[in-house]
Amino acid sequence: MEPTLLKIRHSAAHILAAAVQRLFPSVKFDIGPATDDGFYYDFDLDHKFTTDDFQKIEAKMQYLIDQKQAFEAQVMSRTEAHKIFSDRQQTYKLSRLDDIPDGETITIYRNGDFVDLCRGPHVQNSSEIKAFKLLSIAGAYYRGDEKNQQMQRIYGTAFDSKEALENHLIQLEEAKKRDHRKLGKELELFMIDDAVGQGLILWLPKGNIIRTELQKFISTELQKLGYMLVSTPHIAKLGLFRTSGHFPYYKDAQYPPIAERATLESSKDLTCGELLSGLEDGSLDGFLLKPMNCPGHIKIYASKTRSYRDLPIKLAEFGTVYRWEQSGELSGMTRVRGFTQDDAHIFCTEEQLPNEILECLGLVKMIFATLGIIDFRVRVGLRDPNSEKYIGGNDSWEKAEGALRKAAEVIGIPYSLEVGEAAFYGPKIDFVIKDVIGREWQLGTVQVDYNLPERFAISYVGNDNKPHQPVMIHRAPFGSMERFSGLLIEHFGGDFPTWLSPEQVRLLPLNDHNTDYVRDAFELLRETNIRTSIDASSEKLGAKVRKAEIEKVPYIFVIGDKESETRSVSIRSRRDKNLEGTYPIDEAIALIRDEIQTKRLFSRE
Amino acid sequence: MEPTLLKIRHSAAHILAAAVQRLFPSVKFDIGPATDDGFYYDFDLDHKFTTDDFQKIEAKMQYLIDQKQAFEAQVMSRTEAHKIFSDRQQTYKLSRLDDIPDGETITIYRNGDFVDLCRGPHVQNSSEIKAFKLLSIAGAYYRGDEKNQQMQRIYGTAFDSKEALENHLIQLEEAKKRDHRKLGKELELFMIDDAVGQGLILWLPKGNIIRTELQKFISTELQKLGYMLVSTPHIAKLGLFRTSGHFPYYKDAQYPPIAERATLESSKDLTCGELLSGLEDGSLDGFLLKPMNCPGHIKIYASKTRSYRDLPIKLAEFGTVYRWEQSGELSGMTRVRGFTQDDAHIFCTEEQLPNEILECLGLVKMIFATLGIIDFRVRVGLRDPNSEKYIGGNDSWEKAEGALRKAAEVIGIPYSLEVGEAAFYGPKIDFVIKDVIGREWQLGTVQVDYNLPERFAISYVGNDNKPHQPVMIHRAPFGSMERFSGLLIEHFGGDFPTWLSPEQVRLLPLNDHNTDYVRDAFELLRETNIRTSIDASSEKLGAKVRKAEIEKVPYIFVIGDKESETRSVSIRSRRDKNLEGTYPIDEAIALIRDEIQTKRLFSRE
Repeated sequence: MEPTLLKIRHSAAHILAAAVQRLFPSVKFDIGPATDDGFYYDFDLDHKFTTDDFQKIEAKMQYLIDQKQAFEAQVMSRTEAHKIFSDRQQTYKLSRLDDIPDGETITIYRNGDFVDLCRGPHVQNSSEIKAFKLLSIAGAYYRGDEKNQQMQRIYGTAFDSKEALENHLIQLEEAKKRDHRKLGKELELFMIDDAVGQGLILWLPKGNIIRTELQKFISTELQKLGYMLVSTPHIAKLGLFRTSGHFPYYKDAQYPPIAERATLESSKDLTCGELLSGLEDGSLDGFLLKPMNCPGHIKIYASKTRSYRDLPIKLAEFGTVYRWEQSGELSGMTRVRGFTQDDAHIFCTEEQLPNEILECLGLVKMIFATLGIIDFRVRVGLRDPNSEKYIGGNDSWEKAEGALRKAAEVIGIPYSLEVGEAAFYGPKIDFVIKDVIGREWQLGTVQVDYNLPERFAISYVGNDNKPHQPVMIHRAPFGSMERFSGLLIEHFGGDFPTWLSPEQVRLLPLNDHNTDYVRDAFELLRETNIRTSIDASSEKLGAKVRKAEIEKVPYIFVIGDKESETRSVSIRSRRDKNLEGTYPIDEAIALIRDEIQTKRLFSRE
Repeated sequence: MEPTLLKIRHSAAHILAAAVQRLFPSVKFDIGPATDDGFYYDFDLDHKFTTDDFQKIEAKMQYLIDQKQAFEAQVMSRTEAHKIFSDRQQTYKLSRLDDIPDGETITIYRNGDFVDLCRGPHVQNSSEIKAFKLLSIAGAYYRGDEKNQQMQRIYGTAFDSKEALENHLIQLEEAKKRDHRKLGKELELFMIDDAVGQGLILWLPKGNIIRTELQKFISTELQKLGYMLVSTPHIAKLGLFRTSGHFPYYKDAQYPPIAERATLESSKDLTCGELLSGLEDGSLDGFLLKPMNCPGHIKIYASKTRSYRDLPIKLAEFGTVYRWEQSGELSGMTRVRGFTQDDAHIFCTEEQLPNEILECLGLVKMIFATLGIIDFRVRVGLRDPNSEKYIGGNDSWEKAEGALRKAAEVIGIPYSLEVGEAAFYGPKIDFVIKDVIGREWQLGTVQVDYNLPERFAISYVGNDNKPHQPVMIHRAPFGSMERFSGLLIEHFGGDFPTWLSPEQVRLLPLNDHNTDYVRDAFELLRETNIRTSIDASSEKLGAKVRKAEIEKVPYIFVIGDKESETRSVSIRSRRDKNLEGTYPIDEAIALIRDEIQTKRLFSRE
């Protein structure tokens, strides 16, 4: 975030706390940082905040801002700070104070009679907060831990001008309309059910069509580039993930392991703690829900001798993986516990790396363009030159980092170099796209890996007839079908291009004299693989049209006596009023088939 | 099995044991039953049997048979039987004797000096065993339990004529050539890796193509019939399966549950036994790898109000489920621990049941016919009139049983009525097919269910505006993609029809003068979605052709100078020699495209 905005928002958070302190003197404060979009503050208070309180709080905030309060930093000893917050009975602040390691500087910030334990930075004077607004209230566990008590979190935002705030609020309003959780429910695309489990998506028939169409599109493009699709199981023995390093290293981000049946039966007297440590240290055996597809693909690579002539080998899978996210982090389809990656692993020689990276970026750019996503950039994650944590030779790293940067340049994608953002096992590219209302989304990644080929000791026979270690590229550029679909729902506002629409044409008979022709038209559409339904209900035409519009069906074919006589249909289009009119049925079908086959975003381009 | 064959085989097992006793007097016997294909006997003996022993054992068996030994039954008291087997130090027999409940008749059978604890039936005289052969040796855990010691099991078979045995051995030889485990490896269709886990299939690129083509074919047919495809997660909370009754009732056939992270962390001092019982009785929370797709589909059904006008609702999913099989039971793709069902659930009214069943059978028949499986039958599982275990009204059962029987009749599928084979929750149909070499395979099922709609309390609004309970049909007629693919590998002997072949055309350039035209031909084939590769290696033509034949590629297009000049190809076909000759490239492509699109079994029909 821009430094000025950061200061304004961070300061607005303090002003919010100061206002709440005036209105509710018994309040206890936890923390109140700036966020990407605004700020929040966490309070412990008997009074339950509602949005009805906002007017009062905002008025008090404005009052404090108008006082032109100065923000003053003061460095002090732990004892002094402790006294300040004890006197004020600010127990959470005392606990946060205890977190600061000995030897680190302790700073407080004051504005008016409000004091906060805080490293800053802040505006010099509250009058710099030109525009602000409180937005919402949420519960938040103290320190993000479900076992702790709930705090009341008030969210707001602040800007350096009224106009900027106004624009932001309009964007928020638009984002709310496009919220994939809301549209997902209204359009019956997906559901989440507590009885199944939080963060686990059930794809409803209509959403599943979108997912299937996307997968079909991506698979076809992958196959053109020589990728081979495979399917691997959703569980594997712990040992596999021990070899890969995914377990127990990342155990907190995984579902707990499944102990072997035999282990459980023979160790009923072990404690759970002992069981868990046994599974972790490998003395007991078990399975893990796969958090990654890579080890399975490596096993496939290693299942036969590979020659340099076979490389690159590109194994792809729409592989569903399961990872543990705190329940507070979960959100719709974008933060989930089970997701299907558009995953692939490329095994290649070092010389092939630049071309493979280039091909990955080219593919992603093409797929984004098809979906009308033209504003995107990549972040190239490089080594931190001062760190020693990296595996793989210096020479390899230079080449790989060069290949990533070069690929972005050649394809013409804006990129930034992020020093220190590489994984310990190789440099990477992250995709960041902008949706139609200008919000940025982080999607997936292309990642060079020198580590797993080493851990699994895989090889190919070089043209010198000796074994060599291939380089591995992980790539899941769209992240996951769940996250990508969530983004697309918001990007399109539920108004998918025809090729992705769950229902593409709705037939509306004006009366029930023409059932034979309506049937014929339906069959013709279906034979052309156009997803069609008939609304033969007894509603009035207007009501039927409105229903189809609410359900965002791109085309309505109205059929009355005239259409039936001439074997034609009257087209209504959601996106292209110029197209509307009466067409012979064959011509109407050809129009739509063509739009679908070319994956056009609009009826005519 | 035919009663005469059963007696012959059961008696041959005793003759085998008697022969082993003469050759190895210290042997201890467990049991030796007849099986569908022959018989076996389990021995405990220090000497390690190898097939080198077979000649000697078979000679001794023939000697005993030629003695025309009588098989004599003798009913006796437990004490008498105990004395017989104690005297002979037959400890396993004593343990089997203990299994017989008090009050049940205890019978022994004698032939010559061999005595067995056995209920029979047997031939009267060993000379009725006209032909026999020992086949193989395997390890088998005592009582099938991995925790017990391993016994040595000798398999054999026996018939009432030398000719019948000869035929059976030829069939066995043919079956061995077609073994999907052997072909799966040779043709690189699938693999199993102990590091991933036994019974867990990794679909290699070529096998995955077959699976994908099958799924595409089945999905298209399902969609024509109004099925809607969904996707549901591979895990769900235990409570869901508690509601459905799948847990803990079937817990031994499932992977152990995954305890909730929070449960594990807060109960490190619990013992594993306490953890397991807590998960089973519901006092602790956790997840289960789904053993069934039904609960997820029911949740989707129940996610909105359904009207009688919406029924039938047919939700389909290629859903991967995980079940626990003893490792001794696992075999290739046909007995596995993870498998993808061609699953669907139909929610309908009782009146709709007959039509829905009919439609299911029609679909299955059509799909089997497309695959050249024309010899199949169904088993209709009915209630046992003497049992009270069934849920659902008498009237409903009568209707459903009638509907199943009627459907088989109408479609013209041979069926048998299997009284007492219904599940407690409804009658069912099982599919049994015969492959090209005459072996029977049990595939999937169509199952009426009155239980789950009740347990989940699902309903629809009837035209009386009141809630009614729908009937549910489970149907996974092909069983699973794994088992069905395993069967098809054996059915086709790896020689798949072109539409299912992983590689459909191989281009063989005669020299390297024509790379441009070869490229053109390749591109034309690929644009037509014909799976093609080029063998541009430096091998001789003969070697390349042999390679393509071993890999069972249905078509080879040879390209030399003449073909290049005339933009043609010389076709070699695996199945239709009449087709061979030189064709313009477009014509060659059209021929094959047509064969693929119509899913022809042979090039011309």
